[in-house]
Amino acid sequence: MGDYDYRNIDDVIHSRVRLAIMSYLMSAKEADFTELKKALRVSDGNLSTHLSKLEGTGYVSQEKKFVGKKPQTLVSLSPTGEEAFRHYLEGLAAMIGTQQ
Amino acid sequence: MGDYDYRNIDDVIHSRVRLAIMSYLMSAKEADFTELKKALRVSDGNLSTHLSKLEGTGYVSQEKKFVGKKPQTLVSLSPTGEEAFRHYLEGLAAMIGTQQ
Repeated sequence: MGDYDYRNIDDVIHSRVRLAIMSYLMSAKEADFTELKKALRVSDGNLSTHLSKLEGTGYVSQEKKFVGKKPQTLVSLSPTGEEAFRHYLEGLAAMIGTQQ
Repeated sequence: MGDYDYRNIDDVIHSRVRLAIMSYLMSAKEADFTELKKALRVSDGNLSTHLSKLEGTGYVSQEKKFVGKKPQTLVSLSPTGEEAFRHYLEGLAAMIGTQQ
């Protein structure tokens, strides 16, 4: 039997949109806000809210800059975020692992 | 790259406590309320709320009966719930699969 204590699942990562953000960044390492928005098919507001939450725990960082006259926000996965994501996957595997 | 559309993740199952319930039942098929409560380390009220939600979508059924004079609630995974859980795992794997 697995470990069914739900507290082992990091809620900051588990929320569906944040899980999608973190999964995307685990592959891409960094992504432009617009690129993320398209990949996840979420609204600006929704993405901003979840990125702020992930920034608050230090899992991602956001850097605003200009490319020519266009403002751009670059979102990067931090080492803390990468570690937290790997830990999250372990907790998830311990819970659902026997079915996979 | 994976599929990062968060709508592919069934929110009824994804909630941490409900994910723990469903994972437990995928192994055990059925469980007494008290057994579930101990495995998940949740309160009566919390477990009841999440079981009602899962019952509402037909993923589990609850049968109340008496064992001697003690009331008991038997929680069972339905075929619909099992199918939904497998579909959930596919969506999850498509999102996070490349990191595992």
